[in-house]
Amino acid sequence: MIVVMKRNAAPEQKQRVYREIRQAGLRYQAIEGVERTVIGVIGTRSDTARVQLEVLPGVEKVIPILKPYKLASRELKKADTIIAVNGVRIGGDQIIVAAGPCSVESEESLLAVANSAKESGAALLRGGAFKPRTSPYSFQGYGEAALKYLARAREVTGLPVVTEVMDTKDIPLVAEYADILQVGTRNMSNFSLLKELGKQPKPVLLKRGRASTVSELLMSAEYVLSGGNMNVILCERGIRTFENGTRNTLDLSAIPALKDTTHLPVFVDPSHGTGRREYVEAMSKAAVAAGADGLLVEVHHNPERALSDGEQSLHPEEFARLMQNLQRIAEAVNRTI
Amino acid sequence: MIVVMKRNAAPEQKQRVYREIRQAGLRYQAIEGVERTVIGVIGTRSDTARVQLEVLPGVEKVIPILKPYKLASRELKKADTIIAVNGVRIGGDQIIVAAGPCSVESEESLLAVANSAKESGAALLRGGAFKPRTSPYSFQGYGEAALKYLARAREVTGLPVVTEVMDTKDIPLVAEYADILQVGTRNMSNFSLLKELGKQPKPVLLKRGRASTVSELLMSAEYVLSGGNMNVILCERGIRTFENGTRNTLDLSAIPALKDTTHLPVFVDPSHGTGRREYVEAMSKAAVAAGADGLLVEVHHNPERALSDGEQSLHPEEFARLMQNLQRIAEAVNRTI
Amino acid sequence: MIVVMKRNAAPEQKQRVYREIRQAGLRYQAIEGVERTVIGVIGTRSDTARVQLEVLPGVEKVIPILKPYKLASRELKKADTIIAVNGVRIGGDQIIVAAGPCSVESEESLLAVANSAKESGAALLRGGAFKPRTSPYSFQGYGEAALKYLARAREVTGLPVVTEVMDTKDIPLVAEYADILQVGTRNMSNFSLLKELGKQPKPVLLKRGRASTVSELLMSAEYVLSGGNMNVILCERGIRTFENGTRNTLDLSAIPALKDTTHLPVFVDPSHGTGRREYVEAMSKAAVAAGADGLLVEVHHNPERALSDGEQSLHPEEFARLMQNLQRIAEAVNRTI
Amino acid sequence: MIVVMKRNAAPEQKQRVYREIRQAGLRYQAIEGVERTVIGVIGTRSDTARVQLEVLPGVEKVIPILKPYKLASRELKKADTIIAVNGVRIGGDQIIVAAGPCSVESEESLLAVANSAKESGAALLRGGAFKPRTSPYSFQGYGEAALKYLARAREVTGLPVVTEVMDTKDIPLVAEYADILQVGTRNMSNFSLLKELGKQPKPVLLKRGRASTVSELLMSAEYVLSGGNMNVILCERGIRTFENGTRNTLDLSAIPALKDTTHLPVFVDPSHGTGRREYVEAMSKAAVAAGADGLLVEVHHNPERALSDGEQSLHPEEFARLMQNLQRIAEAVNRTI
Repeated sequence: MIVVMKRNAAPEQKQRVYREIRQAGLRYQAIEGVERTVIGVIGTRSDTARVQLEVLPGVEKVIPILKPYKLASRELKKADTIIAVNGVRIGGDQIIVAAGPCSVESEESLLAVANSAKESGAALLRGGAFKPRTSPYSFQGYGEAALKYLARAREVTGLPVVTEVMDTKDIPLVAEYADILQVGTRNMSNFSLLKELGKQPKPVLLKRGRASTVSELLMSAEYVLSGGNMNVILCERGIRTFENGTRNTLDLSAIPALKDTTHLPVFVDPSHGTGRREYVEAMSKAAVAAGADGLLVEVHHNPERALSDGEQSLHPEEFARLMQNLQRIAEAVNRTI
Repeated sequence: MIVVMKRNAAPEQKQRVYREIRQAGLRYQAIEGVERTVIGVIGTRSDTARVQLEVLPGVEKVIPILKPYKLASRELKKADTIIAVNGVRIGGDQIIVAAGPCSVESEESLLAVANSAKESGAALLRGGAFKPRTSPYSFQGYGEAALKYLARAREVTGLPVVTEVMDTKDIPLVAEYADILQVGTRNMSNFSLLKELGKQPKPVLLKRGRASTVSELLMSAEYVLSGGNMNVILCERGIRTFENGTRNTLDLSAIPALKDTTHLPVFVDPSHGTGRREYVEAMSKAAVAAGADGLLVEVHHNPERALSDGEQSLHPEEFARLMQNLQRIAEAVNRTI
Repeated sequence: MIVVMKRNAAPEQKQRVYREIRQAGLRYQAIEGVERTVIGVIGTRSDTARVQLEVLPGVEKVIPILKPYKLASRELKKADTIIAVNGVRIGGDQIIVAAGPCSVESEESLLAVANSAKESGAALLRGGAFKPRTSPYSFQGYGEAALKYLARAREVTGLPVVTEVMDTKDIPLVAEYADILQVGTRNMSNFSLLKELGKQPKPVLLKRGRASTVSELLMSAEYVLSGGNMNVILCERGIRTFENGTRNTLDLSAIPALKDTTHLPVFVDPSHGTGRREYVEAMSKAAVAAGADGLLVEVHHNPERALSDGEQSLHPEEFARLMQNLQRIAEAVNRTI
Repeated sequence: MIVVMKRNAAPEQKQRVYREIRQAGLRYQAIEGVERTVIGVIGTRSDTARVQLEVLPGVEKVIPILKPYKLASRELKKADTIIAVNGVRIGGDQIIVAAGPCSVESEESLLAVANSAKESGAALLRGGAFKPRTSPYSFQGYGEAALKYLARAREVTGLPVVTEVMDTKDIPLVAEYADILQVGTRNMSNFSLLKELGKQPKPVLLKRGRASTVSELLMSAEYVLSGGNMNVILCERGIRTFENGTRNTLDLSAIPALKDTTHLPVFVDPSHGTGRREYVEAMSKAAVAAGADGLLVEVHHNPERALSDGEQSLHPEEFARLMQNLQRIAEAVNRTI
């Protein structure tokens, strides 16, 4: 932790800072610069967190030095984390594509999508049972019935199921049916939910909050990891910016940034990331080229009748074509799909 | 709902759109413009939500016309909503100031702050028992113990208590002690939480999500209102932008925007909105001048030892001075404080 | 300047950093922390700017300590700068309101607005002769003809004139007619323009770029100041965010932030800041309450026929009412208007 | 243009709107919806621009329908624009990479970079002579001397030169030496500059403003096109968001968005887009995979001694490796490099 004093800080103001540091059981080293004094506080992050030096008179600002996440950091664990789910290895050489409808609407339509997605090369089945919707008057998902359809589709296709859980009280129910529990963008900072997910064994797919930095995404992962669940998949899905031609701004530079700082697998959701079906292929290719370990793609048999997000869902034949094109990109970066 | 056809949309593409509209039981009216055709779809919002016309070939975009919120809208209820809590009238002529520490740390320190806040003119006591923190390693609040201190401080001072609830399962506990249940910025889109809060009778103070529009804030309020709880207080607390000199960018234009569109009371949190103690007074005055119905101000006896957010907390004597200065602004806009 | 080394930086990597610092003629002091080494580089800002240590192996990041602006800083000049223009004192106790149309459209209409604005208490006349418009097909301003109308209106009313200059080659022409030269939000980082404005004597009203931080605004002011022109007025006019209910997000916390760090006068433009006539009064009051030294308000005799920005212009009678209401706020913060 | 009336708009308010539309020589068609009246105004964009209906009483909002750009639009010109510069075809099957230093620092170092860049497969030489810098105290470029070095490097390598022009008065000078004139992100809305560039024949590389939408980028291109210069290359280079782990947020979804709406070539600048050398390769691959027509990559022989932007510049050997890896991606999308 670095304390920058004001240009005109008085000697007794500096003494006060030194005293507070010592009283917190920490050491310090002062650097007298040309214009101002800078004080390095020496200690672990949790130790230095015990003092709030920015409020002392004469202090201009306090700059943290240590990274706030530990278990998620590649500094502590160099090797990529690989998460095995019913024979699917996430985070390895194979790029894992999860496909399926935004909302699960019926067993029949889900089976049709799941079968064709599998045939096209999808490795996971995605689909929403509990849907977070901006409006209370919008369709909120079929809940447990949808979970049952998903389990049935897994039985038929063998594809492991990823689906969202929105509330601590629903975790046991969702975990009963799903193979991977998804935390949506609106819940990335729902710390109660993250804590509970840290206590159960199923892998967690954690979507980046639309107003959250890459560093905050890692802190949210840290909530799950520090609870004891080491199987977290991170997912870039677009952040909120002033650009309104796309639903969100898909931040693909988060891929190299995350691969650099964490050992956890990194997925990308080009469907929510752009909100437009016609941009999904370009962004899927870009994500794979940039080093993503997997994709989350919305596929629907009849987008024009979808109960949610039809405008960003691919037709199954579009998805088949996408998978073919992705294969070439995967090879160009020495991976399979 | 307005459907804008592409410039070169074929006649059969238009026919397809008309057919879908009719099949959904809706009427339409087409306008042949100079460059393209525009189709007005006539029906209530919930009716028009049943068709996803943007995915049809030849359609360029679909523009919603109706506002997505109803119960929160001033179009339906002209008069300001006034919420009475133990004799405090929120949303009326009096500007209501809620003061207290970010986190409740001990009964003694809370009582000291509560007493001095009351003396200075605060009408509500605020304080965190359950704290959402970016890091799992940061102090997470004292939970029920803190709730008991808050209840005790209310007994002593008579000030109604507002405190945050983060999880559906904690609602009964928090509601037992608090007078107003706060939903924090990270949970504005935690729809499970909002639905449950709609089913219980205590007023809800709903903070704007840091990446949420004013319109989305009203939609989240609509979740509570549509559950049957009509007592919602909205709170602007800063949004996330590229500016990093302040913790958030306090969007005070949300005040006239909300007063224009909704009958619900509007509060402002200048402490989180700026993240800097020295800007709190200027922003508090500005908020009152712009028409806010209340403020949420962090006050701490010893900010340099605060367990959270010390850098944005006022000393009690700073708060006393703030209240004096606010009184003059309140008078200048024909209100009391 | 602080250099943070990577956790696993090798001793020879640290040596390399020390060597580069020494070779640049600078001193350093290393702090061995619990997890990593932090190196303080000692020297003036221009000296430290000569090394690019972030590219050396083993370096995690480099954190600047010194503020990048000098002449604009309150650390170097404590007293508020007051700019006198034809008897109008900008930056003193009196709040200065500049009123007038977005674009100057005719001598007759300008005179009408100028006369009524003066009567209502405006101290400056604003009006656009050269208009930056997003579309090349939109009205671009009447240029020199409009400048002449402005000069004529000044003759009649005595109000000094502020108008925008968009190009270095137009500076002599605009300076011939105007009393204050305005740099628009799109040109805040047009450094060629700023440099030229630094070489001429007329005061400059510098609007904040819609994607620029407060610190960058001060750096742009520094371009003018370092050219020798010490008369710069800063103007907050809204920044670009995801919120689309207002044209921009007016960042009023920039007012205390600027008053804290610079001695230059601070204005606010609530018309562009919100883009909506009905929010102008609330935001004007808020700006004055927060400590602004002046306002820029669009007033038009017939907003529905305005050639630009009619939706954010006040009718003269609305402006008269605004000025009356502002007077009460000004008094509440011990100022006049 | 669609006019949405307020829910409670009075009949005479609607009549007033109709009257204004008729007086502007336009036609209209009203749609009486369930909740409110919507009025379609029929006319060309420039015709409808003559009325400002949003300011009329009873009007809630006005929604434009027609796209504001014409010459840049793919609706008017279906085929991709190909720009030939000294034998280099920009916008065709070959992906064009422009490489070189941020600032031109000496003839010797420039030649070294230019030669190795050419050998690695670069098709254009980039380098800054006039540098826009946030601080007036930072290195501002060597101006004409640097232009001469660039011309000399072109002579030696045959690579056409792209360099920035910042001011209308410098256009003749820069055009004398450069093959392509670059407009930087800070000048995307410098309309005076764009107008002048439209009147001269050299191709223009137009960088997206860091706070500008894709649609606004096209409007700025329209300024150049409507002046008569049809050779504009668009360049995505990152936008400004709250994420601070990268210098900017590179918006790669702008690529499919632009390819969809315009016939102009689309470049990407991964160096400024991320600000970090170690992310440049991932983002370059992603850009090519997403359909970019070219890249702008900063290469410097000795980044640690660069006078600007060393932290985002590649070493020549890193650039060579990048080009090899890009070749595989280019092939995977059926292009050459």
